[in-house]
Order: sequence, then structure tokens, then C-alpha cells
Amino acid sequence: MKQLPGGICAAKGFRAAATHAGVKAGSSPDKNDLALIFSEAECNAAGMFTTNRVKAAPVYVTMAHLESGVLRGVVVNSGNANACCHLSHEHAEEVCAAAAQVLGVSPDDIAVGSTGVIGQELNAQAIIDALPGLAQNLTKDGSDAAAHAIMTTDTKKKEIAVSFEVGGKTVTLGGIAKGSGMIHPAMGTMLCYLTTDCAISTEMLGDALHQVVPRTFNRVTVDGDTSTNDTCLLMANGLAGNPLIEWKDEGYDAFVEALTEVCTYLAKHMAADGEGASRLITCTVSGSRSEDAAERLSKSIVSSSLVKAAVFGADANWGRVVCAMGYSRAPFRPECVEVRFASAAGEIQVCYEGMQVLFDEDKAKAILSQPEVEILVDVHEGHASATCWGCDLTYEYVHINGDYRT
Amino acid sequence: MKQLPGGICAAKGFRAAATHAGVKAGSSPDKNDLALIFSEAECNAAGMFTTNRVKAAPVYVTMAHLESGVLRGVVVNSGNANACCHLSHEHAEEVCAAAAQVLGVSPDDIAVGSTGVIGQELNAQAIIDALPGLAQNLTKDGSDAAAHAIMTTDTKKKEIAVSFEVGGKTVTLGGIAKGSGMIHPAMGTMLCYLTTDCAISTEMLGDALHQVVPRTFNRVTVDGDTSTNDTCLLMANGLAGNPLIEWKDEGYDAFVEALTEVCTYLAKHMAADGEGASRLITCTVSGSRSEDAAERLSKSIVSSSLVKAAVFGADANWGRVVCAMGYSRAPFRPECVEVRFASAAGEIQVCYEGMQVLFDEDKAKAILSQPEVEILVDVHEGHASATCWGCDLTYEYVHINGDYRT
Repeated sequence: MKQLPGGICAAKGFRAAATHAGVKAGSSPDKNDLALIFSEAECNAAGMFTTNRVKAAPVYVTMAHLESGVLRGVVVNSGNANACCHLSHEHAEEVCAAAAQVLGVSPDDIAVGSTGVIGQELNAQAIIDALPGLAQNLTKDGSDAAAHAIMTTDTKKKEIAVSFEVGGKTVTLGGIAKGSGMIHPAMGTMLCYLTTDCAISTEMLGDALHQVVPRTFNRVTVDGDTSTNDTCLLMANGLAGNPLIEWKDEGYDAFVEALTEVCTYLAKHMAADGEGASRLITCTVSGSRSEDAAERLSKSIVSSSLVKAAVFGADANWGRVVCAMGYSRAPFRPECVEVRFASAAGEIQVCYEGMQVLFDEDKAKAILSQPEVEILVDVHEGHASATCWGCDLTYEYVHINGDYRT
Repeated sequence: MKQLPGGICAAKGFRAAATHAGVKAGSSPDKNDLALIFSEAECNAAGMFTTNRVKAAPVYVTMAHLESGVLRGVVVNSGNANACCHLSHEHAEEVCAAAAQVLGVSPDDIAVGSTGVIGQELNAQAIIDALPGLAQNLTKDGSDAAAHAIMTTDTKKKEIAVSFEVGGKTVTLGGIAKGSGMIHPAMGTMLCYLTTDCAISTEMLGDALHQVVPRTFNRVTVDGDTSTNDTCLLMANGLAGNPLIEWKDEGYDAFVEALTEVCTYLAKHMAADGEGASRLITCTVSGSRSEDAAERLSKSIVSSSLVKAAVFGADANWGRVVCAMGYSRAPFRPECVEVRFASAAGEIQVCYEGMQVLFDEDKAKAILSQPEVEILVDVHEGHASATCWGCDLTYEYVHINGDYRT
């Protein structure tokens, strides 16, 4: 497997474009807010969506369009979530119909995504007006623009592509994602689009997505708020010419490995670029009797406001780590817990057998002052482990979210 | 029922004192950090404690001493949680033994409490050295000093007393509490001591506490972190001379009513004085089919970092309220939801039937700019309701917790 440029357009047959449609009134014309992704060949497709009981209209519409297991394109806007408004559903359908018309496909073949403020009416006309120009500008170089267009409070685009072999053919898989705030995915995550030229059945595509997403996007948290718009969409157009993957064979395993790499990359960068974040927190709980318990412990640690604030202050307050484990409802024996902090500046043990150990405070501070820090917990009970990603809690998070809507 | 001064010493037979013992090295001598509460008569007693799997030593020791259902006194320190250290258990026992000796009672009759940093060794000797002086200074005026001594990052003491009638006798019930950070009680809460001169059996006392705490303290959240030290202790010495409450009769109902008033007062003030808080958020979900669902919805709303940050910014971002309801896992129909914001500055409807309504942004901002704001949700499905309390998320919360330990 190797990384390559081109993101969602790296795989054969995919093109993309982005523009400033003016979805949010008064938004800067320099900030693109509308992206279009198109495959020249029909794609088998699978998606995972928010488990929030309140779902945005584009989530419902995309779920309906996915029932056939086939897609051709995606239209996605930032600046408005298109949720909880009287016309939300109609607007989502209208946007799909307009995109289908300019692309010469059926509305059922179009997925739609939105991200932004909830409860304010979407300027669907601005999107519809921008679509013909966008369709004309579809290009193999369009992934970068699309990755930028779906950003809201993100500060960096999240984009990746990898290639790997299936049955002697080179297959490419790429993706873009946005994260930042309201990130605590319970299935899929806030807008992620994955494209591949792999020949793979809809069933195997769905299985691969359901296998990989729980271990990647669902292990990220920024603020514990599961959004109404979470969507992770995977489209495969088969243009790589590999033997069709329709069983859980070597080809499937290679595909899952590549999908894991792509989703892990995007998930990790989503955590690192969490709203206001100054540090990426990677928490690995090992030595557990089950992966599920390790995941619950790890997620409880990276979700804790107190742990997040301590990492912001580079304060080796490991008691908060143990406390967050304790209220996770996952089984473990407090008297067996070992906690270490690590980063590019080194590694330090701060707790052993559930108790304080004497450690060098200056060294701990240096380790926690790095942009990427690791919290390593060993519960010394078994062989299962899980890694979750989060970020620190900063003044900037409060600043961004104290006045996001107005 | 009427409120009166005196806190935990308002009831007959209770005295208290506090001092600066120097529990935390380098702490200001002006800040008391040790409190002693004593009843001249034997008390029936009941307690509720943290459900965190990691429990501090004083929690285990107090649970053991409560097995007899009888207590005489409480010794409690701030500045150190006495958790996760090799000598934690021995220190908690030693402190009880020393308090018992100066008070002339059995160590089993003493409850012990601690609050502060986890994983740093308790200076038990400082406490033991301070106890003889503290015992000599026990006074009917000591509640105020005790309420202050148990504070950590709290900015205001939480103290109340009420009197009511049972069987023609005046009964008094008082309490003190501390909250501030690591507040998301799952049973009892971070240090609350309640005293009464009511004659009530241990069984009825336990029933009353288990009836009231889930609807008061367990409906408070500051930061979603359930502490390792949560303790809510209720002591009744019977000196009011009322007919013993040993059935769920009128006397029991009067007691529960008074206990609810006291606990609600303390819980609300704990939320209002949450770490860094600038506003108290009271969220009432009504019209639910069950109180449990209403509580889960309400708690999810007041726990949401995004809702809390929006309230800090006085931003009427009701979409975040609906979003937090959606991921609460409680049943409700999104299309029936009504949301209103209210405060001393008025009331405004912002969402009806799950959809946006046009509202006056300036009026909404004025309402949300008050020190106490209400989020009123009606799910229009039934007759059950629940109120939870929380606070906004501010720069100050991040400041306090970025460097709490060092």
C-alpha cells in the first residue's frame, strides 16, 4: 500500500469541483461552500449515518437514495446543516434533482450532504444556481477544492488517497472529511466521502464500511456531541478492473486494510483539528479482557473535559484519567491500572497498580507540551486493546462555540 | 416549612468547627481545609456514594462505618482527595480513629470525607494534629466555617436549613455541600452533609435519601465527570422529640418534602457555582411519557458542551438543544418538540413542532444574558417532567482545569 495525492479524485473515473455559492448570507466569497463529486461510471455504494434521533434532511434523503446500493455523485454544502426547518426535506430533494439534471443522471443516483448551523433555512436556490457551472468545472484536480469547501470551523483540510493491489490490479481509494465541532460519532461521522475504483459488490462494500468505521471514526471525540448530520459515504466504480470482490477473500482483506488506513488517517486528523484544539490526544488502553471494554475506557478518557483541560495545561493529572475510567461502566480492576504519558519528548510512568508513582514533574510537563500526546493505559488483565483519538479543551473552543451561530 | 440560619448546626444537638490544618502544602493559612461535625446524641444515618469504579479511600471507610446505621460525627478535609495512594486507606482509618479519640466515641461512629487532587499522598498527620483543637472549638455557630472549609474551587459556600412540623414537634434539617468541578453525580454527589434532629429510623432515613437524591443532586452536571469522592451523608439524632418516623406516614412525607427542599437548594447552588460558571442553566423537559425519559433528555441538554458554550455566549442556538436530545437515547418524537428560553428578562419560543420559528434575536440575547437562564422543552407526548441543573462553559473553566494540580 502506498499513499498518493489526489484525494477523492485519485481513483479512476472520479472528478470533483467546488465553488462559493453563498449558502450562508454574508460569507466570504473566498470560502468555497459547495462541492460536487461525480463518477463517470456507476458506483456500488454504502453509507453510515448519525444515530442521533434528530437527523438532518440530507441524511434521510441520502439514506433513501442509497437503498438501490448505487450512486453516481454527491453534492455537499457547508454553511447550513439543512436540519429542523419546514422546507429542509424539499430543499434536499431539490438539490439532488438539480444536480442530477446537470449531470445527466437520475436524482436517486445523487447523495446530498450539509453541514453548518441547525434550524436556519437553507438557501437552496443559491446551490441550484451554482450547480451548472460546477458540473462544467468537474476535474481530476478537484479534490483539494472539495475538501476545503466542506470545512466549517476546521482549520485544515482532511484528504488522503492510497493504492494497493487486488488480483494483480492496482486499486485506488481516497477520501475527504470534515470534523471540528459536534464530533462524537456514534456511526459514521460528520461528512466523510470515500471513493475507489475497486470492483466490489455493494454487500462487501457495506460490510467493509461497517467493519472499519466503528474502529476509526467512531473512536474520535471532540466534544461529546453527536451531530445530526454525520455521514460517511463510500463509492466504488469498479474502473480499476480488478476481479470483483464478492467474498471475504484476500481482495476483501486488502480492501479493508486500505479502508482502515484511509479512515484512520482522516479520523486522527479530525481529532487533531477539533474545534479550538492545540494538541491531538491519542489514548490506547491495552491489556483488557475485551476490545469493547478497552474502547469504552479509552473513549471515556478522551471524552473527559477534565482530562482534556489538563492536557491543554500540560498538567500530568493522571488521577483524572483513572477517574474517567471509573465512570465509564467498563469492567476493569482499579488496583491493576498502569498509566503512562508519551510524546516525541519521551515517555513517563505516572501510575502503577492503581497508585501514584514518583515521577519527574518537569519531564512530564515537557512530554505533555508536545502537539501530539499519548495516554497509554494498561489494565493488566488480558490481551485486547483499543485506541481512541481526541483533543484538548482550550479557550478557543469556548470562544468558537460561544458565538457560532450569529 | 421555613428557612432558617445555622446550616448543619441549626438542628438540635449538632455542633461544628473548622480550621486550617495545612492539608495541601503551601496553601493559604486563611483558607480553612478541615471541618468537624459532631452530634451530642447518637444519630441514625444514611449515605449515598459515587458509582465510580475508582472510589477514594474515605468513601470505602465511610461505607463500612455506616453498616451499623449509626454515626456520631464527620471529619472532612479539602485540598486532597485521599484517592489512589498506597496509604490512602490507612490514612482514612487513622483520621477516623483520631477524631473518635478526641470526641470520646468509637472510630466506627465517625464518617470521613476528602476532596481535592487525586493521587497525591494525604498529609494525615496535619489533620490528626489539628483535631484536638477542632474538637475544643465545636460550636453551634460552626456551620459557616465548615461550609467554607470543604470548598475547593467553589466560590460560594452552599448552606441551608429549614424547619417543619412532625407530629406537633418542630423538626429542623440543615445541610452543607461543595461542588464546582468533576460534578456529574451518579449517586449522591461531591460532599454533602445533612443533619437533622428528626426522630426517624435508619430504614426510613435511607429510603428518604434514595428518594430525594436521584431527583436533586443526580440532576446536576458541571462537566460530565463523576468524581471518585462523591458522598451524601444524612444524620438524624432524634432530639426534636417528634414521634419516631418508622413508616411512610405523614411525618415521612413532611421529612421527604423538607429533604427535597434542602437538597434542591444545594444542588442548584452547586450548578450555579460550577467551575468557571457565569450562568446557572435550569432545563425542564415536560410533556414526556416518563420521568426517566424527561430526565435523560434534560440531562443530555445541560451536559452538552455546545449548549453550555452557546449559553455562555448568550447565543440562542436552539439547534444544539434539539441535537443533544437526539443523542440522549431517550424516546421522543422530534416533530413534536417545542423549545423556549426564559429568564428574568422574559421568555421566548425558538422551536415549535421540531422546526425553526421566527424570533427576535435581540430579545433572545437579552434573555440569555441573565445570570440564571431556563431552557424549557415540551415534547408534547405525555404528562411527566424533570428538571436538571447545569452551568455554562467558560474560558475560566479551561483556565482552572488547565492547571489545577500544580
